[in-house]
Amino acid sequence: MCAIVGVINSKDAAKTAYYALFAMQHRGQEASGISACDENGKIRTIKDRGLVTEVFGKDSFDVLKGDMAIGHNRYATAGSDSLLDAQPVTANYALGSISVVHNGNFVNKDEVRDALIEEGAIFGSNMDTENIVHLIAQHKSKSLKERIIYALSKVLGAYCLLIQSRHKTFAIRDRYGVRPLSLGRLKDGGYIVASETCAFDLVEAEFIRDINPGEMVIFERGSNEIRSEQIFTPDPRICAFEYIYFARPDSVIEGKNVYEIRQNMGRVLAQKSKIEADFVIPVPDSGVAAALGYAKQSGLPFEAAIVRNHYVGRTFIEPTQELRNLKVKLKLNPMSSVLKGKSVVVVDDSIVRGTTSKKIVELLRHAGVNKVHFRVACPELKFPERYGIDTPSFAELISANKNVEQVREYIGADSLEFLSIDELKTALGNERNYSLVSFDGDYFIK
Amino acid sequence: MCAIVGVINSKDAAKTAYYALFAMQHRGQEASGISACDENGKIRTIKDRGLVTEVFGKDSFDVLKGDMAIGHNRYATAGSDSLLDAQPVTANYALGSISVVHNGNFVNKDEVRDALIEEGAIFGSNMDTENIVHLIAQHKSKSLKERIIYALSKVLGAYCLLIQSRHKTFAIRDRYGVRPLSLGRLKDGGYIVASETCAFDLVEAEFIRDINPGEMVIFERGSNEIRSEQIFTPDPRICAFEYIYFARPDSVIEGKNVYEIRQNMGRVLAQKSKIEADFVIPVPDSGVAAALGYAKQSGLPFEAAIVRNHYVGRTFIEPTQELRNLKVKLKLNPMSSVLKGKSVVVVDDSIVRGTTSKKIVELLRHAGVNKVHFRVACPELKFPERYGIDTPSFAELISANKNVEQVREYIGADSLEFLSIDELKTALGNERNYSLVSFDGDYFIK
Amino acid sequence: MCAIVGVINSKDAAKTAYYALFAMQHRGQEASGISACDENGKIRTIKDRGLVTEVFGKDSFDVLKGDMAIGHNRYATAGSDSLLDAQPVTANYALGSISVVHNGNFVNKDEVRDALIEEGAIFGSNMDTENIVHLIAQHKSKSLKERIIYALSKVLGAYCLLIQSRHKTFAIRDRYGVRPLSLGRLKDGGYIVASETCAFDLVEAEFIRDINPGEMVIFERGSNEIRSEQIFTPDPRICAFEYIYFARPDSVIEGKNVYEIRQNMGRVLAQKSKIEADFVIPVPDSGVAAALGYAKQSGLPFEAAIVRNHYVGRTFIEPTQELRNLKVKLKLNPMSSVLKGKSVVVVDDSIVRGTTSKKIVELLRHAGVNKVHFRVACPELKFPERYGIDTPSFAELISANKNVEQVREYIGADSLEFLSIDELKTALGNERNYSLVSFDGDYFIK
Amino acid sequence: MCAIVGVINSKDAAKTAYYALFAMQHRGQEASGISACDENGKIRTIKDRGLVTEVFGKDSFDVLKGDMAIGHNRYATAGSDSLLDAQPVTANYALGSISVVHNGNFVNKDEVRDALIEEGAIFGSNMDTENIVHLIAQHKSKSLKERIIYALSKVLGAYCLLIQSRHKTFAIRDRYGVRPLSLGRLKDGGYIVASETCAFDLVEAEFIRDINPGEMVIFERGSNEIRSEQIFTPDPRICAFEYIYFARPDSVIEGKNVYEIRQNMGRVLAQKSKIEADFVIPVPDSGVAAALGYAKQSGLPFEAAIVRNHYVGRTFIEPTQELRNLKVKLKLNPMSSVLKGKSVVVVDDSIVRGTTSKKIVELLRHAGVNKVHFRVACPELKFPERYGIDTPSFAELISANKNVEQVREYIGADSLEFLSIDELKTALGNERNYSLVSFDGDYFIK
Repeated sequence: MCAIVGVINSKDAAKTAYYALFAMQHRGQEASGISACDENGKIRTIKDRGLVTEVFGKDSFDVLKGDMAIGHNRYATAGSDSLLDAQPVTANYALGSISVVHNGNFVNKDEVRDALIEEGAIFGSNMDTENIVHLIAQHKSKSLKERIIYALSKVLGAYCLLIQSRHKTFAIRDRYGVRPLSLGRLKDGGYIVASETCAFDLVEAEFIRDINPGEMVIFERGSNEIRSEQIFTPDPRICAFEYIYFARPDSVIEGKNVYEIRQNMGRVLAQKSKIEADFVIPVPDSGVAAALGYAKQSGLPFEAAIVRNHYVGRTFIEPTQELRNLKVKLKLNPMSSVLKGKSVVVVDDSIVRGTTSKKIVELLRHAGVNKVHFRVACPELKFPERYGIDTPSFAELISANKNVEQVREYIGADSLEFLSIDELKTALGNERNYSLVSFDGDYFIK
Repeated sequence: MCAIVGVINSKDAAKTAYYALFAMQHRGQEASGISACDENGKIRTIKDRGLVTEVFGKDSFDVLKGDMAIGHNRYATAGSDSLLDAQPVTANYALGSISVVHNGNFVNKDEVRDALIEEGAIFGSNMDTENIVHLIAQHKSKSLKERIIYALSKVLGAYCLLIQSRHKTFAIRDRYGVRPLSLGRLKDGGYIVASETCAFDLVEAEFIRDINPGEMVIFERGSNEIRSEQIFTPDPRICAFEYIYFARPDSVIEGKNVYEIRQNMGRVLAQKSKIEADFVIPVPDSGVAAALGYAKQSGLPFEAAIVRNHYVGRTFIEPTQELRNLKVKLKLNPMSSVLKGKSVVVVDDSIVRGTTSKKIVELLRHAGVNKVHFRVACPELKFPERYGIDTPSFAELISANKNVEQVREYIGADSLEFLSIDELKTALGNERNYSLVSFDGDYFIK
Repeated sequence: MCAIVGVINSKDAAKTAYYALFAMQHRGQEASGISACDENGKIRTIKDRGLVTEVFGKDSFDVLKGDMAIGHNRYATAGSDSLLDAQPVTANYALGSISVVHNGNFVNKDEVRDALIEEGAIFGSNMDTENIVHLIAQHKSKSLKERIIYALSKVLGAYCLLIQSRHKTFAIRDRYGVRPLSLGRLKDGGYIVASETCAFDLVEAEFIRDINPGEMVIFERGSNEIRSEQIFTPDPRICAFEYIYFARPDSVIEGKNVYEIRQNMGRVLAQKSKIEADFVIPVPDSGVAAALGYAKQSGLPFEAAIVRNHYVGRTFIEPTQELRNLKVKLKLNPMSSVLKGKSVVVVDDSIVRGTTSKKIVELLRHAGVNKVHFRVACPELKFPERYGIDTPSFAELISANKNVEQVREYIGADSLEFLSIDELKTALGNERNYSLVSFDGDYFIK
Repeated sequence: MCAIVGVINSKDAAKTAYYALFAMQHRGQEASGISACDENGKIRTIKDRGLVTEVFGKDSFDVLKGDMAIGHNRYATAGSDSLLDAQPVTANYALGSISVVHNGNFVNKDEVRDALIEEGAIFGSNMDTENIVHLIAQHKSKSLKERIIYALSKVLGAYCLLIQSRHKTFAIRDRYGVRPLSLGRLKDGGYIVASETCAFDLVEAEFIRDINPGEMVIFERGSNEIRSEQIFTPDPRICAFEYIYFARPDSVIEGKNVYEIRQNMGRVLAQKSKIEADFVIPVPDSGVAAALGYAKQSGLPFEAAIVRNHYVGRTFIEPTQELRNLKVKLKLNPMSSVLKGKSVVVVDDSIVRGTTSKKIVELLRHAGVNKVHFRVACPELKFPERYGIDTPSFAELISANKNVEQVREYIGADSLEFLSIDELKTALGNERNYSLVSFDGDYFIK
């Protein structure tokens, strides 16, 4: 999970990219970067560890000149070197300079890398993105477009890519369209491409359409025309997780508002079984929309009874007197004056390892809750995602190893329910295919 | 508005103070400081500009040794020097070293300061706190307690004070009890005094009781006994603003849960007039509890239709292409897919200058809202507070200069209602007096 | 030992103060600060730990506005809190704001402080300077000049003081003139007062004269006239250490160029005894001038055979493989190709604890030197200085505890000679009295 | 000009590399980096802009584990990106990971780079070093040694290289030996290779011998044996500039002590013509050794009459009152009390653009010097160096455009003399060839 943005033909493109990345900070907090390209085709890059507001300062935009820019927010993944693996990747090759950002995952990256290395390539980072750059560099065509198509013919995976050269930007979405990518228009006539539409809202861009699965869109400096080419046969399977918890609730993906889909999930969840409870509470902020849906459907009152502290930064954590569950408590505090003696339905978006859910149940018990009915607005997570999400291995996924009753026992709830896969599809609307690998293990890209 | 905390007779007192300050970050983000006192009575202080997590690092606690500590979060006020005016104030005087933190405001501070200066005192900062230290130093008694009582006899105002000497900590609340101050017990037997009970929850302290208006509580190193003295006749008037927007919803002040009081305010607001609307939405996060109360009372659905971005830090803000309302938009994004064509009741906790409310209404209109019924969970703010809150002057308070209809016109809403003062009292529960100066202009401390 | 500077009636006074402090960095590296006073009498201060170039950046001079400024470089002294004890000290008192910088030491500071505290004063730092501010504040006169004279009547010591008020700056030197203070004129007509004349060279000020012992010079905003008053009967005894090692060689103190005086010391040293040696080498940079004088007088060649590394900053020092004498070696490297098998005269400015000299002799032996004749360009240091120099206690001063032969044995030299007190006087020129307390124990201020 | 170091088979190799780089800070101040290789062959790199003491802190050595390390100090060159172009360059390729540092310059780097890019290579930096890594990666041999030899067969230039793989380190010097590289042995039995022997002195390594021109030395983890291979026919031409001004005076290059060679240059200079002058002064620190040699030969006294301020860091420079020659004055201050009315011989190591020399003459005139006889301890710089020194272009080299008389006029001296090329050879000792391209334009590598 990451965020990407491209801005073309807009004054101060890097500033617009900056605000767009800011709006998409939730998709990646480890590192951020922007490459801007000026009128002479000179590309300048600033990237570093940290939040968008930490990486860029006022001075950054004196450097990042030009009417074209691409940017990236990187999600923290285990074992990565946050500085080395920050994007964009900028390189010089036979046709000049290019800069690439990438959201997703190539499933055959090791094979591609090994083959490239076998042929004499050198790698400076751990990123898949470097594969793409090497493949582009390796091809002999004079046309960057042909080189890109060649490179993509060699890789398998779920990806959205933005490739910026001297005077063009290419936006590509894999044939499955696993990750979202939308096209918008800025008020000064320039174009913007971004992972989520919430970025358009902040920079006051008008949403035009989603980039299609398998489509390559080519933008050219100075031209209002955009060229589109269907480079792969589409087989759309947008990732259900984008709706479940990645995307911001105010984003619209493939025509569906994330907040409303999440409410649907809560509604469907409420239809599964009737619970005697005093009220419904969300795990903030992830479970809010689903809990609202649940409350509406069930008729139970909604209470914001767990308070979230939003100041959590890089906190010094070293409990002095055996402060239990400190890490969770720094973020979440259940109000015992509201909760004492009550029976509650707690709604969260998912259960991954089960450890946080277990701590939340403990905190609720400590606050005096009588009955905890835990409801999860997605199916059991039984398989590691491999298309761009950093899910843990089988061994760590609690639902890969325990059935619902065992999970309930582990987290200490009085009852526990997940959505079934079919119920999830109902909530999503049944008219379309989705990537559901984490739930059904159907690794359709291999 | 600030946060104070004192920890006594607890191992690693400074760490506990740190977590308590972290939990109370909402009361002040400009500066933070802790003074720890070790077994030899040596006081060490670290204070600086910034959030709690920025001011203190792991190394800080190698310095801040001891089983006694006091701490402070400073609220940004216009014209203050954030470093110079950071607390605690530590000074050497005739009886040794003391360290003082303070939440509130002395109404006669200029007179006291002028008199002290007249007598030859020097001042290094702009803080009222320095007055207290000078008055303590000036008195000739061998007893710090007597000196403190003398000092407090010279000042008028709303305040909570913690004064830490070699082996004692004094906690004092003014006779009106305008600002909250609670007493708790830590798991290792030590005591904790804090502005809000949410701090107790994080450090797993048990709430014992509120410090009474006019009470001085004396803690002594090594003693489980705490001594209490009623040094002023109490005349309790807790500040209504603590319930309206200062305190965290999960705090309990004078026995009342802030979240529940805020829901009451929303309920009372809903009783004022019946509105035809599609749903109720809060201005997040300030209006959430009141909006929930409003929704319950009115029977209208509650929708979290304005999304808040919690990553707002020290953002570089310089609009490129006339991004309207950028500062508000960086934080708040109304979902047009939910809002388009709807009539909504928008609930916020208060209207101060009116500028933010005006921008929110604009954003809602831009998102396609048809009718905006703005509801405010407190009365019209007509008078500057002078007891510890940094409210603007008469000239800037919109309700000091415009009536409700004029404010409605200014912010662009279709309708606008405030709570009346009596309705506020109803929501607060009628059994007690409150400080309501901002609403009624009754400056009872002068 | 510290550096002070005052600038009056000069555009961008703080920038000039900055360059002057930069030129006097050798007098204090722990902390630096400047207070500038603008046309409205508003005083703004920036001070912090670190070198002049670290404390001040480009932004500093947007803050430090005005045509008057005073500044200070602080010397590291054991046990001081570098931030708390940074100067200038700025305070508000009965006549407004003042800012004070100070070079020297008050011998009765504890008595004065105790008396002030007894009367109710509070102290925020460990600095003597705070005494002066308190005494000024305590007096009741409407005239700052009278208050200053009163304050100085209460203190005993060696000091140079600069006191800046709304529209005036006072420069005062104690009656003994122990520390240097010179007056110069800037090219734009403004005045400058500084500890050393090397500061004048950098800012292109013309040297006018030294401030006299016991003199107070008063500068007034907007006036070219300077008023002088002899507030104490002069009894001049400039500190011999200024010539021996404090001052920069290019400074001129009381009409004498430091470099030339140091050469004199070397010449006198060479006359004491005739040594058979291959050449003379200095301990760089402290012994260079004296070694040159020694070489000229003795006829022996001068060799720069110990190389100094000037990049020594805040180095990480943690020897891995028992690197001997690492701290000295990071700075000094004797060239074995020059030194092997030779007999050398090594000249340094002084021996304090003897530890460094011992390590230098070891390094020379390791480089293959045959005979090491150590020569010291000052007398034996037998008494702690108390007039502004941070010399160690009796217990640590090697010459307070060992005679010359014992010191020679300790440092491992083949021969060792110091200047006698009379020889020092000869080198200094015999026409004047000097402060020689470290050598003769005549504590004339008490 | 840069510094390189390699440490093999020594506990805490990175710490030793750190101290060695510290001792060689004079060879490059822009960036610094170390790659350490642990027992499992895992290579970790830390590199950044700044001085050695700024780039590495205590924590660095928790990361840089292992008994093998290579390091680099980078010299600032116009147009380089200090972070991107910092070394070591670490990359993954067919045989695993390697890390490379490099001192020197490849004259055919653009051709090599173009050819590599043509074949599909991508470049992330502007460094020649990347060429080497690509060439190594491109070859198909299973032997790294063979690949290195292949890579070096493709490049032309002056270079010293250290290549660190999982368990081996290769040290290579080009066939001309233009840049120095020496081999030493640490006290714990490990080996060290460094640009200058002054690094050995600090880490207490014993000098073994210089690496020969055209030699490759191979070190293997765990083995005391070192293998040597003469991979190119030697044609030794050590760069004369190393003696003239690059190297530290305490280094020994090819058996000659730099300090003594510089004295020779001064002696030869003094033999050129007899000057009536009061004394000889060096431009510190560059001209000290030559000035001493000049003084000895001529019989004129040596005076350290220009004082150098060693605190010059990243100074804020913005003259307020037209401070002339501020940049030079921040570093150098001539003592007018010594210089007034005198005739002096000023010795510096070289004249490049002439601007600094001109300013020094101005400062001397301002200090009252009567006659300035400028003497330069090397020949006229007429050709840009291309073998690792960042000399300016023809247009900027003053001696490429003006004859001696014209240069004298430009810098404002009363007389001016350079060494002739033959005199330089005499000073260097005539037994060996030197790289003299800057003086004679004989670009022998092309």
